[in-house]
Amino acid sequence: MRIDINADLGEGFGPWTMGDDAAMLDLVTTANIACGFHAGDPETMRRTMELARERGVAVGAHPGYGDLLGFGRRPQAGVTAREIENLVAYQAGAFLAMAELAGHPATHVKTHGALGNACADDDALADAVARGIRAADPGLAFTVMPGTATERAAERAGLRLIREIYADRTYGDGFNLTPRREPGAVIHDPAEALARVMRMVGEGRIESTGGKQLAAAIDSVCVHGDTPEAVAMARALRQGLEAAGWTVAAAVGG
Amino acid sequence: MRIDINADLGEGFGPWTMGDDAAMLDLVTTANIACGFHAGDPETMRRTMELARERGVAVGAHPGYGDLLGFGRRPQAGVTAREIENLVAYQAGAFLAMAELAGHPATHVKTHGALGNACADDDALADAVARGIRAADPGLAFTVMPGTATERAAERAGLRLIREIYADRTYGDGFNLTPRREPGAVIHDPAEALARVMRMVGEGRIESTGGKQLAAAIDSVCVHGDTPEAVAMARALRQGLEAAGWTVAAAVGG
Amino acid sequence: MRIDINADLGEGFGPWTMGDDAAMLDLVTTANIACGFHAGDPETMRRTMELARERGVAVGAHPGYGDLLGFGRRPQAGVTAREIENLVAYQAGAFLAMAELAGHPATHVKTHGALGNACADDDALADAVARGIRAADPGLAFTVMPGTATERAAERAGLRLIREIYADRTYGDGFNLTPRREPGAVIHDPAEALARVMRMVGEGRIESTGGKQLAAAIDSVCVHGDTPEAVAMARALRQGLEAAGWTVAAAVGG
Amino acid sequence: MRIDINADLGEGFGPWTMGDDAAMLDLVTTANIACGFHAGDPETMRRTMELARERGVAVGAHPGYGDLLGFGRRPQAGVTAREIENLVAYQAGAFLAMAELAGHPATHVKTHGALGNACADDDALADAVARGIRAADPGLAFTVMPGTATERAAERAGLRLIREIYADRTYGDGFNLTPRREPGAVIHDPAEALARVMRMVGEGRIESTGGKQLAAAIDSVCVHGDTPEAVAMARALRQGLEAAGWTVAAAVGG
Repeated sequence: MRIDINADLGEGFGPWTMGDDAAMLDLVTTANIACGFHAGDPETMRRTMELARERGVAVGAHPGYGDLLGFGRRPQAGVTAREIENLVAYQAGAFLAMAELAGHPATHVKTHGALGNACADDDALADAVARGIRAADPGLAFTVMPGTATERAAERAGLRLIREIYADRTYGDGFNLTPRREPGAVIHDPAEALARVMRMVGEGRIESTGGKQLAAAIDSVCVHGDTPEAVAMARALRQGLEAAGWTVAAAVGG
Repeated sequence: MRIDINADLGEGFGPWTMGDDAAMLDLVTTANIACGFHAGDPETMRRTMELARERGVAVGAHPGYGDLLGFGRRPQAGVTAREIENLVAYQAGAFLAMAELAGHPATHVKTHGALGNACADDDALADAVARGIRAADPGLAFTVMPGTATERAAERAGLRLIREIYADRTYGDGFNLTPRREPGAVIHDPAEALARVMRMVGEGRIESTGGKQLAAAIDSVCVHGDTPEAVAMARALRQGLEAAGWTVAAAVGG
Repeated sequence: MRIDINADLGEGFGPWTMGDDAAMLDLVTTANIACGFHAGDPETMRRTMELARERGVAVGAHPGYGDLLGFGRRPQAGVTAREIENLVAYQAGAFLAMAELAGHPATHVKTHGALGNACADDDALADAVARGIRAADPGLAFTVMPGTATERAAERAGLRLIREIYADRTYGDGFNLTPRREPGAVIHDPAEALARVMRMVGEGRIESTGGKQLAAAIDSVCVHGDTPEAVAMARALRQGLEAAGWTVAAAVGG
Repeated sequence: MRIDINADLGEGFGPWTMGDDAAMLDLVTTANIACGFHAGDPETMRRTMELARERGVAVGAHPGYGDLLGFGRRPQAGVTAREIENLVAYQAGAFLAMAELAGHPATHVKTHGALGNACADDDALADAVARGIRAADPGLAFTVMPGTATERAAERAGLRLIREIYADRTYGDGFNLTPRREPGAVIHDPAEALARVMRMVGEGRIESTGGKQLAAAIDSVCVHGDTPEAVAMARALRQGLEAAGWTVAAAVGG
């Protein structure tokens, strides 16, 4: 009866902000923080880490492609395992040192956007993420989606796992997210999202839109941090889970 | 009778190269490698580290300002201690993880260009460099110029020191480098540079252009890596020091 | 009895926005649009231009230093006239072509932030701005502050001038803006700002905090676009000026 | 009996150089100069333009993807016509103003690397290039490969054409370049390249590796500027063509 709520935060850059990080940090228990490649810069990283430390929210690196203009959401054709090792190691390593500066040691790594998508389907690229994480610190957990290549890679690499589900997204039969452009991909109603999350976490299984079921030890629920409704969704989840008797706490550290 | 020779290498960026890193790595015993802010990118860092590992050359982070166009040589007005902590921690942290990927652990940190100049004269900024290094790894050495703020900061922070002199530059009475624009600032003749280096290292003192002397335990001699004459100068130093009975070896690791 | 209201808009970058451009474009008659160096990117420029065209708002280039992280507000030590020519010509030239794509030809150039500050005091640098503008298109107007080096440079270069005052800022005795850090530098009350603007525009003179007066043919009033109160301030000015019988219209084009 | 020789130059960035631009500018009659997205920066552009002006070499914009690390050679998945209009208009517009600053007006536009490849096969994207060029200046010529989408787009747009062949590359049956990874794609022997060029230019037809022939009015021969053998190849072509009685001169301007 214990569950983590995580969100992607620290997604500003220089003078620009995205979402309401301070409000989100009052609701989530784990923050995945951008590392300067698709968003974030050293000062934004540090300030976000300091806010998290004050609230006891665990922090981890959220590496992405080096693509500020596209926010790391543009696929990179022909990306190699070596490039992904480099991207993850560089950003996770930078993150570890910034977290030390902020007085709040890092707990985990979760990949962002198109980098995450490239690895979810491809065992060789997912293994590259795991090697990048191990190069930064083999004690870091790897946040993965159950049933995908990232879960298998984390297990092969002997890394600690944080198995997450998405509060507001549905799953295809391969247990990847239904693409946003498809109808029913995104759940907008907080009550519906809460009910889904409690069912999946309570029963320890993920359900696909095609009716498939995957048994999974779910550690964390991901909520979005960058949309107008993000704070309302996170609050509904947090309050609903606590009202139902769940302890909401970081999966690792915090 | 033991001395290190260090050079700033890995100063390419993407498709561009600078200097002849492979030739330099056959001559120096320590390489300071750019970290992606004033030069370098993850793949260039890794390739340079791999070349260094094959030759037993020690590697360390060479952080600079985020200024590719100006190669980190443009002063940044009003830079704060916090910004410098961020710059050094971020880059040194990234470096540590990349060095693990390359199978060749990092030994030290040396600041680059205008960032280095800002810290050489200013104790508060030099302390910020030391805090940035400690955040990345308190076991890293800090490469400093004897008699400057960096040496004092490294000592206060309890970091291991690599005290270096420059083979081809003269010193002002404050034991900072004579600015390049002044006559006599740069020594072009390898034989003259070698004689100077052997005198300073042998006698354990640095001499200024004004005739001042500073007693110093010199660990390393810095040669430039990015000029046409760099390889010839490094070869003259290496061969001259070895011919005179010196053991040329990395100050730390290698 | 005719006056322009201008604001700096299009200051987002990639996924990030700044201020409420659509609301501001309903209130101002001229927009100075960032060109990709301190803010903006080709698509953000074009979208902002398209919104302006739909509303009949004149558009001009707002070039700045190549400094996204510092939003072009960090002084660049030792910047040369040649560098400023390059910065202005490159950005204004790019702007002209983007404005053609957007179907809304450009009317003027106004410098941004630290680039603007460098030129306000320095005739040689202000002349460099004028040369950069002329290289892009000698028919473009140059937005200047009366009494400063930019006004003199525009006159020397034979460029059309847009003489502007700031609605919410006070002036020192040299008729540059009082630095923000000084008390009384910024006027927060829209009613007070409106009264000031009507007095200065109506009487054709600028008043300094020290009581000096400068006769000036004022063409435009600048309001900020990036603060929470920006829209309220712009609305108060527009409505107040129109209620007092002023025609609010672009200084050039529109 | 008149032919142009063109090369891609100005491909340095900040402190980094690529190829020997000064030597190449003594041999070619048209230079395609990078515009700051895949290579180049305002000062590098201007310096290259000034060198070209001194030698009477025509200059044009060489726009590419915004990808310094990949030198504009990485394909961009899902690039849209609107993005390509933006990329071409922005860079060509900036180029025009920089060329005015350098006192050497621009004559043409030629796309670079992966941007060029995307347009060679796709009429909608090639039309987008033409619209971008027209937005910058409808008097600019568009450098195209005969038989490809770019030639058709330039004709539809009413732009002046510069039809080019490659001196050191072979053609597939669609009259695009044979991919470099295939055997026989690149011709390394200057004598062989010269013979090929003289045959194609003299007979007014391009031959594919599969034996197909395309009649084409060839205006220009492209030589590479960034390889070690570039200068030797350009010299062999220039001297060979002139010895055979050809007048080597810019296709437009110069």
